Amino acid sequence: MVLTSWNKYITQTDELVNHFSDEELLSEIAPGRNRGIYILGHLIAIHDKMLPLLGMGSEVNADLFEVFVTNPDSKRATAFAVKQLKERWSTQNELFANYFQRVKTDEWFDKHTQVSEEDFKKDPKRNRLNIVLTRIPHLTYHFGQLKLLKSDKGQI
Amino acid sequence: MVLTSWNKYITQTDELVNHFSDEELLSEIAPGRNRGIYILGHLIAIHDKMLPLLGMGSEVNADLFEVFVTNPDSKRATAFAVKQLKERWSTQNELFANYFQRVKTDEWFDKHTQVSEEDFKKDPKRNRLNIVLTRIPHLTYHFGQLKLLKSDKGQI
Repeated sequence: MVLTSWNKYITQTDELVNHFSDEELLSEIAPGRNRGIYILGHLIAIHDKMLPLLGMGSEVNADLFEVFVTNPDSKRATAFAVKQLKERWSTQNELFANYFQRVKTDEWFDKHTQVSEEDFKKDPKRNRLNIVLTRIPHLTYHFGQLKLLKSDKGQI
Repeated sequence: MVLTSWNKYITQTDELVNHFSDEELLSEIAPGRNRGIYILGHLIAIHDKMLPLLGMGSEVNADLFEVFVTNPDSKRATAFAVKQLKERWSTQNELFANYFQRVKTDEWFDKHTQVSEEDFKKDPKRNRLNIVLTRIPHLTYHFGQLKLLKSDKGQI
């Protein structure tokens, strides 16, 4: 159920991101608010942290964290072009999709890598599935904001 | 894990909604987009549908559906004042909180009321927990939009 939900919203966000021109992604979702490109970079940087947590390996987009998480949107050109971020986003989603297909049901309830055996016993919710579960509301929070960039108006 | 997530985002959205003045909720989240009041009414109307699905009883906010789901934001005064919607929102959240405390773990994996025994056998994901799980991304999608009404700028 959780993975179905993840896949659904990644697919919807991906379609939306690819629907946007570079120019649209460089515009603000609302006056004075974050630009589309900032939200895209932010999602990649946050999802990147799931790699070590799930035991999938080291981060591959750690260079995005400072620009798209630590700091607010500079509203200026960054070292990362829209095209490059779209590619990184796409590569990252494939990585998760492939990995999620391989993980067995039981393994989702194993502890994630950043919790000790002792703490995990006290709170078994600190498992791998919960890592994915808690990233879905974060994803859709920003998906709802990215929707505001789209040219057709009035939709909920 | 799912109920923890529901409670977390209901609490955060509730705090945000109650932080807003009536005037703020009557303004648009972005130029030409939905008003805060429309999103609040929309959330109540969508969550109301969970009542019969979870077997909690009949809908109690069915009168909101046409104004806040079927139709786009009219941008005009409706029959529902901000104060009334805030009260309905609060009452609804208490109703779910009380109910969720009573449901036993196993019961969450029972079928919801709108699926037949036969279809449930084919797709056991059509259970009660999944009803709540799938409403969380919807909630946070709109929570991310409501955040844009808030007076402090630049936050992600």
